[in-house]
Amino acid sequence: MKGLILAAGLGIRQKENGDSKPLISLLGLSLIKRVILTARKSGIKEFLVVVGYNGKKIRKYLGDGRKLGVKINYLVNEQWKRGNGLSVLTARDFMQEPFILLMADHLFDDKILSQLLEITLEKDECVLCVDRNHSKHLDIEDATKVVMEDGRIKDIGKHLIDHDGIDTGIFLCTPAIFDALEESIAHGNETLSGGIRILANRGRMKAFDISGKYWIDVDDDKALKNAKSLLIEQLRKQTDGPVSKTLNRPISIRITELLLKTGISPNQISLMSFIIGIFAALSFYMGDYIYLVAGGILAQISSIIDGCDGEVARLKLQESKYGGWFDAVLDRYADALIIFGMIHGDWILHHDTLIWSIGFMALMGSFLNSYTSDKYDSTFKEKMTDRYAIRMGRDIRLFIIFIGALSGQILWTLAILALVTNFEAVRRLVVLRYRYA
Amino acid sequence: MKGLILAAGLGIRQKENGDSKPLISLLGLSLIKRVILTARKSGIKEFLVVVGYNGKKIRKYLGDGRKLGVKINYLVNEQWKRGNGLSVLTARDFMQEPFILLMADHLFDDKILSQLLEITLEKDECVLCVDRNHSKHLDIEDATKVVMEDGRIKDIGKHLIDHDGIDTGIFLCTPAIFDALEESIAHGNETLSGGIRILANRGRMKAFDISGKYWIDVDDDKALKNAKSLLIEQLRKQTDGPVSKTLNRPISIRITELLLKTGISPNQISLMSFIIGIFAALSFYMGDYIYLVAGGILAQISSIIDGCDGEVARLKLQESKYGGWFDAVLDRYADALIIFGMIHGDWILHHDTLIWSIGFMALMGSFLNSYTSDKYDSTFKEKMTDRYAIRMGRDIRLFIIFIGALSGQILWTLAILALVTNFEAVRRLVVLRYRYA
Repeated sequence: MKGLILAAGLGIRQKENGDSKPLISLLGLSLIKRVILTARKSGIKEFLVVVGYNGKKIRKYLGDGRKLGVKINYLVNEQWKRGNGLSVLTARDFMQEPFILLMADHLFDDKILSQLLEITLEKDECVLCVDRNHSKHLDIEDATKVVMEDGRIKDIGKHLIDHDGIDTGIFLCTPAIFDALEESIAHGNETLSGGIRILANRGRMKAFDISGKYWIDVDDDKALKNAKSLLIEQLRKQTDGPVSKTLNRPISIRITELLLKTGISPNQISLMSFIIGIFAALSFYMGDYIYLVAGGILAQISSIIDGCDGEVARLKLQESKYGGWFDAVLDRYADALIIFGMIHGDWILHHDTLIWSIGFMALMGSFLNSYTSDKYDSTFKEKMTDRYAIRMGRDIRLFIIFIGALSGQILWTLAILALVTNFEAVRRLVVLRYRYA
Repeated sequence: MKGLILAAGLGIRQKENGDSKPLISLLGLSLIKRVILTARKSGIKEFLVVVGYNGKKIRKYLGDGRKLGVKINYLVNEQWKRGNGLSVLTARDFMQEPFILLMADHLFDDKILSQLLEITLEKDECVLCVDRNHSKHLDIEDATKVVMEDGRIKDIGKHLIDHDGIDTGIFLCTPAIFDALEESIAHGNETLSGGIRILANRGRMKAFDISGKYWIDVDDDKALKNAKSLLIEQLRKQTDGPVSKTLNRPISIRITELLLKTGISPNQISLMSFIIGIFAALSFYMGDYIYLVAGGILAQISSIIDGCDGEVARLKLQESKYGGWFDAVLDRYADALIIFGMIHGDWILHHDTLIWSIGFMALMGSFLNSYTSDKYDSTFKEKMTDRYAIRMGRDIRLFIIFIGALSGQILWTLAILALVTNFEAVRRLVVLRYRYA
């Protein structure tokens, strides 16, 4: 399915000599690139972008889309100062099939599109994504409102007093939209809403409720700020462990904001976290208390940076399977080498072989924690949820090491690590046996 | 979809006072249970079994099917000495939808059914699975032959001189079969083939070529022997490593044949292999050369038995996701403890701390070999194939340990293990980076 993106306008509150709104950068990505990459996540790989104001610059900026892994063609709407219905109409000859219609400056949750694409339409129907529970940040006065009935749009406009929701600017259209727009224009209304109202009057305009998923019209500086908070909010993962949630994530998000300005890639960040882990291991290896403290701090820093690769990848829509795998494998190596450094450091201080055995068990348990859950995912084709697993994740393990190093008690630290990790691995064997046997 | 299973007859070469053929045991499972469980793998959970000869015994034996995880109802064909078309006809009132028709004594590859179920049929069509490249073991004289044209059956019968393939006794039927059978019976032919010929004459009998997948009609003792070889042949896995293929698998298959007679479960076998691994670790732990040799032998035995759990599960159609996961996790624990035992044994002999470091690296590498490939499976939702991975599986690792233990060179053994496993893990990181970056 193709995507049609409207990028012709100036933006209501923008000065005419300002930069094009679609090109405004937000957390490492311009608005229009973010819209394109979000749509690509739902499998849309071919786009028509309607340009007008500052059109040449947008065309030069996006090119043929190859760098984004998509194909982009352009349509020019010289009449961009008039209603945006005219922009949609420029695509008339190029859209014989249903297509997605998006605004270049409306950001949204990728789940919206993947669900929208599942709706089946009659030949003469269109769908508008409607937000029934709009956020408190929304500039309600300027928003386009809709009245709904039985899952269909009944009326649409900026000045409706009673309304059921907000027009999000995300559409699934059939070519029927073009006839409706021409009819609206013939009646003197050149806006997209005009065409939608024509379809609504005929009962051919479905509504899709996006509640629970975010979208935002980035219309002014205030909205830009809100969009930033909104995107950053998405980084907090439900699967975050307790240390990650309360300590690592708040710090890593700050670091991520800085990293986004450097253009460093997620895999490079994974490697950076790994190298810091190696330095932690080397520091532990030396043995003296001062090295121990340094090792503990480095291990905790590595743990924090370990969150940044995923954050940058998600914010720049650069998530890759290889990246996830690469990060996980490096983490296992860093885990092992940090434990090895701790053993060696304690050994040269106390020459008690017990540390080797305890350290060995700590490594075994740490690995088994990762392994039981990853092997579960690959075997059962689903995530091992909290129902079966007490999360004994990397954030907790490295935090135990951090605290243990500061206390100077390496043997006890590794003993605790060995105990809790192996206990949890064996517990999973038993719990899942009762579940599946 | 329901399955209709014909279990009424006596079998051509069987004496009347013999046991019912469907109840004959083959590698731990009676023929009819094997047919039912094979069909269950393709999602068929409801069966109608037509009984005749020895019917009470079969009904008592299978019961309502709950123990097999299916639902079984019975139909009685008192006329079981006459043509088998009469058996099919007893189901007339119970089959309003398309259904699978199977013979209680025909064993087959479960892939046949899962592909057969994907065929879409017109209301008056049926499909017969045809073997175009029948095995040399087939008793061609007694087989039912078919002539085909354009993917449809043209003629069917035992005495066709020229033929294109063999009737495998596996059908996907619509209720149209019943009318065809009645028409055939009216013409004096009471066999199922008679009904099929009627449909074939009308061009309503499709053929599905099963080439490359096994099936066998277990008609006499010779066929029973062939069926046994055939099923055992399926146990050799393409993913078997070199040690597994040449040494472990041939031995484990023999042991599996014995284990099948005991009723021991696959998970119990996994546990058995694990416990032998623990004894290997304990033996290594002691240090003396004689214990070293014993440890090496036990490790290799554990490696061989490790193949039996999967073999028993596959032969008894008891494969479970939990079983696969449980086995993998126990393997990782056994791997770790065996390496730990080796380190300790060497340490009490030579008191050289180098063994601890080398052993630690060997454990890290062994784990990373399992982890990189399992994490790959769960991330990419596909198996890491030979294209990216040099297989450094458990069979090879335990064989290195076996040979190393006999040679008495523990430090060198662990050094080699550390080297090859870590080299392979790092190589995967690099190769996959080029593939996916």
